[in-house]
Amino acid sequence: MLIILHSGSTQEDVATVIAELAGVSITGYPARNQGRQVIALSQHLNLELRTWLQQACPQVERILDIRAPYKLASTEYRPEPSTVIVGQGASQVRVGPGGFVVMAGPCTIESEEQLFKTAALVKQAGANVLRGGAFKPRTSPYSFQGMGVEGLKLLQRAGQQYNLPTVTEVMESAYVEAVAEYADILQIGARNMQNFPLLREAGLAGKPILLKRGPSATLEEWLMAAEYILATGNEQVILCERGIKSFDPATRNCLDLGGVVAVQEKTHLPVIVDPSHATGKRSLVTPLGLAAAAIGASGIIVECHPHPEQALCDGAQSILPAQLVALVKGVHNVAAVVRDIYEPVESDVAA
Amino acid sequence: MLIILHSGSTQEDVATVIAELAGVSITGYPARNQGRQVIALSQHLNLELRTWLQQACPQVERILDIRAPYKLASTEYRPEPSTVIVGQGASQVRVGPGGFVVMAGPCTIESEEQLFKTAALVKQAGANVLRGGAFKPRTSPYSFQGMGVEGLKLLQRAGQQYNLPTVTEVMESAYVEAVAEYADILQIGARNMQNFPLLREAGLAGKPILLKRGPSATLEEWLMAAEYILATGNEQVILCERGIKSFDPATRNCLDLGGVVAVQEKTHLPVIVDPSHATGKRSLVTPLGLAAAAIGASGIIVECHPHPEQALCDGAQSILPAQLVALVKGVHNVAAVVRDIYEPVESDVAA
Amino acid sequence: MLIILHSGSTQEDVATVIAELAGVSITGYPARNQGRQVIALSQHLNLELRTWLQQACPQVERILDIRAPYKLASTEYRPEPSTVIVGQGASQVRVGPGGFVVMAGPCTIESEEQLFKTAALVKQAGANVLRGGAFKPRTSPYSFQGMGVEGLKLLQRAGQQYNLPTVTEVMESAYVEAVAEYADILQIGARNMQNFPLLREAGLAGKPILLKRGPSATLEEWLMAAEYILATGNEQVILCERGIKSFDPATRNCLDLGGVVAVQEKTHLPVIVDPSHATGKRSLVTPLGLAAAAIGASGIIVECHPHPEQALCDGAQSILPAQLVALVKGVHNVAAVVRDIYEPVESDVAA
Amino acid sequence: MLIILHSGSTQEDVATVIAELAGVSITGYPARNQGRQVIALSQHLNLELRTWLQQACPQVERILDIRAPYKLASTEYRPEPSTVIVGQGASQVRVGPGGFVVMAGPCTIESEEQLFKTAALVKQAGANVLRGGAFKPRTSPYSFQGMGVEGLKLLQRAGQQYNLPTVTEVMESAYVEAVAEYADILQIGARNMQNFPLLREAGLAGKPILLKRGPSATLEEWLMAAEYILATGNEQVILCERGIKSFDPATRNCLDLGGVVAVQEKTHLPVIVDPSHATGKRSLVTPLGLAAAAIGASGIIVECHPHPEQALCDGAQSILPAQLVALVKGVHNVAAVVRDIYEPVESDVAA
Repeated sequence: MLIILHSGSTQEDVATVIAELAGVSITGYPARNQGRQVIALSQHLNLELRTWLQQACPQVERILDIRAPYKLASTEYRPEPSTVIVGQGASQVRVGPGGFVVMAGPCTIESEEQLFKTAALVKQAGANVLRGGAFKPRTSPYSFQGMGVEGLKLLQRAGQQYNLPTVTEVMESAYVEAVAEYADILQIGARNMQNFPLLREAGLAGKPILLKRGPSATLEEWLMAAEYILATGNEQVILCERGIKSFDPATRNCLDLGGVVAVQEKTHLPVIVDPSHATGKRSLVTPLGLAAAAIGASGIIVECHPHPEQALCDGAQSILPAQLVALVKGVHNVAAVVRDIYEPVESDVAA
Repeated sequence: MLIILHSGSTQEDVATVIAELAGVSITGYPARNQGRQVIALSQHLNLELRTWLQQACPQVERILDIRAPYKLASTEYRPEPSTVIVGQGASQVRVGPGGFVVMAGPCTIESEEQLFKTAALVKQAGANVLRGGAFKPRTSPYSFQGMGVEGLKLLQRAGQQYNLPTVTEVMESAYVEAVAEYADILQIGARNMQNFPLLREAGLAGKPILLKRGPSATLEEWLMAAEYILATGNEQVILCERGIKSFDPATRNCLDLGGVVAVQEKTHLPVIVDPSHATGKRSLVTPLGLAAAAIGASGIIVECHPHPEQALCDGAQSILPAQLVALVKGVHNVAAVVRDIYEPVESDVAA
Repeated sequence: MLIILHSGSTQEDVATVIAELAGVSITGYPARNQGRQVIALSQHLNLELRTWLQQACPQVERILDIRAPYKLASTEYRPEPSTVIVGQGASQVRVGPGGFVVMAGPCTIESEEQLFKTAALVKQAGANVLRGGAFKPRTSPYSFQGMGVEGLKLLQRAGQQYNLPTVTEVMESAYVEAVAEYADILQIGARNMQNFPLLREAGLAGKPILLKRGPSATLEEWLMAAEYILATGNEQVILCERGIKSFDPATRNCLDLGGVVAVQEKTHLPVIVDPSHATGKRSLVTPLGLAAAAIGASGIIVECHPHPEQALCDGAQSILPAQLVALVKGVHNVAAVVRDIYEPVESDVAA
Repeated sequence: MLIILHSGSTQEDVATVIAELAGVSITGYPARNQGRQVIALSQHLNLELRTWLQQACPQVERILDIRAPYKLASTEYRPEPSTVIVGQGASQVRVGPGGFVVMAGPCTIESEEQLFKTAALVKQAGANVLRGGAFKPRTSPYSFQGMGVEGLKLLQRAGQQYNLPTVTEVMESAYVEAVAEYADILQIGARNMQNFPLLREAGLAGKPILLKRGPSATLEEWLMAAEYILATGNEQVILCERGIKSFDPATRNCLDLGGVVAVQEKTHLPVIVDPSHATGKRSLVTPLGLAAAAIGASGIIVECHPHPEQALCDGAQSILPAQLVALVKGVHNVAAVVRDIYEPVESDVAA
């Protein structure tokens, strides 16, 4: 259930309603949505309890019967697909229905030269958002961990120079503020999908969040992670499928495109696809990027590098500049020919 | 290694070479390809052994160093993609590069009326091959097991009437002959992918084989299963991805489209995709069918039913007639816009 | 539901009841159990229908409301654990509650010398059943496929000489009769767990069946496969867990001991464990064999070889003679100290 | 490779050696072990480079060729199993060879009464360590998130009263200090196994760490996570297997006991098993706990509750007081009868 309080309600109003519910042994959890105070319940309220609550608490405007365990993320709550607006001014990009966004850039920011060269390629290829890792979650403590804040500053400058919004990962609460200062989208990496304190902190920063699916997360767990962010009042969440663990070592992960279609039926949030991390292999990136367009996803995020063979990290999965050009053209062609199958909906801007 | 004997070599020639190899403790396995006698070895022969063998055995024409454990299936052996020709006369269909085949029909043949009605829809929608199950591998012994030979006869008549080649599953050696008599393609189901005696029997029937990937088969295991068929001298093998097991119950299986792209790099055999069994859910079939076209697969196989709600089996995943029309149109549109990305190759006919 | 006909009922009685059910659009499937004719239904019969059926069909003795999709295999049908009796005379072995059986022998029968040497070791170590593969399901067509019937004959002679019942795999219906003639237990391999025609044929041979769990079979799918055998009237089914597919290449498969405990709650059939195939690594076999005893399984099946480094197949997972001695002693010690935790039940002999 | 600097080396010495390596394009990563400064390299140094380095850098004492990607965690580096000492004074517990530890307590600390009642049961049953969650990583933001610091204080008092060391989870860097103040072991939960900043922070707190395996972590990824902790100079790491994701919904997770045996061959760190979270089902906990003893693990961690049906979290997997008593007795009985199989080694105390 979701209990929506009247516009203008305060934290005290929330506390009052939660206390009232506690009196009948029901636990309410405070959340926010579209500027409103919201209280979420895991339990179901029957008609009698609903009637009682609305009488007992004048702060309550509406009580919605959302059955999914994720409430604010669900299509039950919001049937129309959401649009997340990224960046500002001329470089602003809309992620959601009716468009197809291409986020591209190096796995890791290695130097000013490498980043600016790549950003130029990204822009020329017609991609919309610049990606680049400054803080890198590495399996080994003995691998390059990223340039840190220095990398963030380079990313911001590259974005400004090439008129591209930027996305980069934040790995810990201590750096949320810094990442939010320099980048346009905060990425929560797959390994941190259930790092709940980080989800809350990132949500509170108020910037768009790119939430990667964990390598063994069910669709429900993924949406529950999104709910942690949404419950902070931040509605600008983009989901990103990046491959799940499978028994076959032939590809690094198994890109679950069926899961993308299925999750789009459960949530109004836009979903994009990362074919680079999913496969770990350059030659698979373009076909799976095109497939993302074919299934009606809202975009892709890919790694590219002017000289992949020199990359400090994940060079084997970075596509070449010419491939990026062909991919951007290809995804828009595919998206165009499938558009009428997915019945374009009126775009619905979040925030 | 593959040892190719001279054209016109006999079984006795094969035995002679195998005996010669046994003399140096190397085991040779007889196979056939393109009408030639072939001997396959798991072990590597160094230059010295190769020289010795060609001198010792005049029957040997060539010795090929194929490193992949699957030999005849590998792109090492045959770099250009193969085409499998299905059906005869006017209804003949080519499965392979430069085309995109749509196989469609009911999960299970239930009655003459249901089958002919569906076949008419399949034809009208522009699909190329009629599918329909006569022998059904059912998890439960207490479920409908199919119409058997009666169903095969109906399928043949429906195919003839609507000028469509047909595909149907064969579950046991005892029925290989019957299925080969009535149908144009013998399907080996996912549960039988490693039923090695059945693979051999089906191969020997000399008809095209549709080999479904097992729900937990690696790409290598899948290609080794194809190798069992190829080793009988039957080169008309079509691979079919139909979803693999994953931890997420949100979809029945996880369609491994990255695996399709990866397997196409390892083998010359055409690969098609089954989005119906992969997902178990009607609304996911069209997006994933379109994705199959986007990744450059050679086709799809889907279930459709004039009245899915009345189907005896798998109605929930059968698409509606109108959806089939849109899907056929859609896959051809997608295939057309991605064709130049996959650099069309000269078609290369098997058999 | 299970409908039990009166003792002495005939096939015609079965047909009559099935026809009566068909009259109300309910499909009945014939089965047999404990010498009785049985009819299984996937659908539920409410009280009204049950009353009607018993009045309409005097052939019906009892109607049991079994909710599990597997009927004869379920603890709903038979709450007490079953015992399967293997072999004859002095070498007879009981597989089930109150005992712990050790089946051991080579992966593959390679020669008379190798088999008899191993059989002697198996006997000396105190194991109860001799295993050995004559027909080998090999991933590659270019690997040793077993000695065939010649191997079966050797196995029978070795079993007789060392007073050990024998178990060996049957891979195809054509050889069920031969395997049933020479061996005491017919093994259905993991890859054939859902080879339904083979399950039926093997069941009809009337000998005990060792049914391995498929590498990606759920517990329910495994029990449904057992049900195919049970429905033939053969009650002598032993289940065998041998590892499931996982994402981690560190071990060949993941031995699912939690699944063994869980399946024991669902079925009365005895369950044993194969730590050799599960792990593919000698040093893991003993610990996991001991774990099988600790969880209350009914036994283990392990591979051993007098000279594993010379084995034609799976030498890396075969334990050494001295390890087998220690393992047999160890499993009995463990079984003894945990016995009172599992509350010994009165043994209950099947067949 | 591991480069061990001389005793008494400083951070500056480390920097000097790293700079020297950088001069030949090799990246060194600073670590600590047994009070020494250590530098780890992902690359291999050949003999020539090793000779050069020892001449160029007098700070270098030894250069070890550790091939595993985890260095300090590997048996290459330290062949003998380590012992981690937990708690202080009379309640001190040794986790490692020659013993078997039982950690038990409620999933979540709910109240003083519940915790102290459970602690009394834990002590009476003969368990050695008290567990209890104060910060709970919950899939849903709308579930009870734990008592926080209040819970930590209760846990400390209960541990003191019943003379039991305590273990509790820390979810974020901000609370590492608090958890380290009140508890004897800091648990890193499965979802945080690759939360690298948290691993570092927890390591630096200097207390023993219980590192749970992620639900889809390979053994190598798990050991790399341990390496992040070890590299801080904290050697007191206990690994804990708690089940991995599988395709079968019959149990919550699949307890990978083969993985435990395999990881014990790769690392000297003690490994314990959590059968409660692995299965999610009370009746499976005891058998799998006994199995942990049978495979030679160093202990178990289980959930128990005086009244599981009233638990706020995970009641279905909490065992009853009488079951805990039987389990503690059982694991010691099993450990005793298998001890000679695992050849007791001289215990080797860490720290």
